[in-house]
Amino acid sequence: MSNNRIVSGMRPTGKLHLGHFHGVLANWRELQENFECFFFAADWHSLTTEYDNTEAIRDNVAEMVLDWLAFGIDPEKSTIFVQSRVPQHAELSLILSMITPVSWLERNPTYKEMQENLSAKDLSTFGFLGYPVLMASDIIVYKAGRVPVGHDQLPHLEITREIARRFNYLYGEVFPEPVALLTETPKVLGLDGRKMSKSYGNAIFLSENGEETRKKVMSMVTDVQRPRRSDPGEPDRCVAYSLNHMYLPEEKKAEIVVACRGAQIGCVDCKKIQAEYLVETLAPFRAKREELAARPGLVGEILEAGNRRATAEAASTMVDVMSAIKL
Amino acid sequence: MSNNRIVSGMRPTGKLHLGHFHGVLANWRELQENFECFFFAADWHSLTTEYDNTEAIRDNVAEMVLDWLAFGIDPEKSTIFVQSRVPQHAELSLILSMITPVSWLERNPTYKEMQENLSAKDLSTFGFLGYPVLMASDIIVYKAGRVPVGHDQLPHLEITREIARRFNYLYGEVFPEPVALLTETPKVLGLDGRKMSKSYGNAIFLSENGEETRKKVMSMVTDVQRPRRSDPGEPDRCVAYSLNHMYLPEEKKAEIVVACRGAQIGCVDCKKIQAEYLVETLAPFRAKREELAARPGLVGEILEAGNRRATAEAASTMVDVMSAIKL
Ligand code: SF4
Ligand code: SF4
Repeated sequence: MSNNRIVSGMRPTGKLHLGHFHGVLANWRELQENFECFFFAADWHSLTTEYDNTEAIRDNVAEMVLDWLAFGIDPEKSTIFVQSRVPQHAELSLILSMITPVSWLERNPTYKEMQENLSAKDLSTFGFLGYPVLMASDIIVYKAGRVPVGHDQLPHLEITREIARRFNYLYGEVFPEPVALLTETPKVLGLDGRKMSKSYGNAIFLSENGEETRKKVMSMVTDVQRPRRSDPGEPDRCVAYSLNHMYLPEEKKAEIVVACRGAQIGCVDCKKIQAEYLVETLAPFRAKREELAARPGLVGEILEAGNRRATAEAASTMVDVMSAIKL
Repeated sequence: MSNNRIVSGMRPTGKLHLGHFHGVLANWRELQENFECFFFAADWHSLTTEYDNTEAIRDNVAEMVLDWLAFGIDPEKSTIFVQSRVPQHAELSLILSMITPVSWLERNPTYKEMQENLSAKDLSTFGFLGYPVLMASDIIVYKAGRVPVGHDQLPHLEITREIARRFNYLYGEVFPEPVALLTETPKVLGLDGRKMSKSYGNAIFLSENGEETRKKVMSMVTDVQRPRRSDPGEPDRCVAYSLNHMYLPEEKKAEIVVACRGAQIGCVDCKKIQAEYLVETLAPFRAKREELAARPGLVGEILEAGNRRATAEAASTMVDVMSAIKL
């Protein structure tokens, strides 16, 4: 019963960075060519970990969606919407909660792991425990056949599949069991060599300008075993190169590797070159983002249309759900 | 911040009996004269314990509401509606789940008690654990100032108050903390002398006819220490009398007590008298019920109007909620 429909959401954490660019956004942009896609800003999910810090959620949604659009997520091809504007997610989530054993949620590997790792946050709420139920609802309320996930999210999707199966078993076949579309996301390193992440303060944002990006690249550590310009360097050990090499054309990469190992180029000059290619790669997206940002109300209009489309689909599923459970 | 609005729900277990008549319905009928009342059929709550047995819920709602109307719950005075038709209950419940510690729910005295007492049912679901969150939502989504509760439900209302307080603390004053309107409900005994309950099979229903009621009364045990007609009896030990005395006028009660203790009346004759008074008391409600049941679509129309009114109120609260949490 697998079909051509995909649902995927992103938490509105604010402006997106290169990690998103190469990860989920690149993935979405490809998917929308071959699937019927529902992409949503998961603002209710933000509450599971950030209920005491909601000030920025609405702005974060707008900034994030602007990045999506700039990057080529196309409202003509995909339904782009905000989770909290489609109350059927909550309605179905409530119903699914009635058939989901607490033990399924407690044994969810992410549950205890996050509670341990994010000990500064209050993750003891009923809503945080129920995160996978809401996620199941997000997906099956559109009767999605596939869900793009990374390996680490497979346990979550498995709970979704179990819940869908249990519903069908109890009340009759309403939902397809969504199948994983396994996606590879390259690990993008940040300015300090750790994984790029907004919270590490090591990110390059799509929404910043070329000058800011240049400065960030110039501040990056290079090969620490090359103290002097006259020492040979090794690009494999260079933090700057590890981030930027993917924006360089093949010949340029070869040129730099040779010049670095032969001490024919200094790191400052080398990073200037690297920065130029990065800025050039990002330029069209940034131009597009500025153009879109200059059109007041645009994001709002796109989201309203998406919310309407999503609501119509979800409402139609809820008719089937209510008739199946006979409420 | 207490106000004049009341919310109260009843699970759709089907046709109502004398226990409801003297308990919650008598109470509601009085409340609607002095308060703005929202009375609802709690069909989502039925799922917390009956998710695998939903066949009858819809019919049960219709039969129950017919009893309400026959008994004088007045759609002109009160908003009569069905919980699952007001999706804002689910929406707010999801939001409240994000701020409710799991520990508040686990320490809810009814939780463990019901799990122990109803061991035949599956009460291990996430929805059953979250019952008090949904109940909090049911009440505060109308910004109700008061809730009619019995002593045994006070812990539930306390969780509602705590959740409302926590919301107000986190996001600003949106909800009044609903105050308990403590209600006394007399214990009505069933045919076998235990508390009247549909599940014990010892109930007299508003929806049955006089002949059925008469037969039930005639089948009741009397004073078991009065084996022969010629033995003196004791009304205080008589199961039939314990149920029926409240339908007898004072003089009649005195007459029976004297005649029973003096062995001047046989139990068959005595129960015939008792049955007549009971049937006579119920007659106007039964006539009204038949009259209402004969009007096709009536219950549906009343509920639709009530659902619309309730939805409008709940939607207006949700505007405040969304603006407070900035979603
Ligand atoms: S020359 Fe370039 S690649 Fe080599 S260490 Fe310096 S910045 Fe890195
Ligand atoms: S005479 Fe009446 S009150 Fe006395 S035991 Fe019989 S039924 Fe009960």
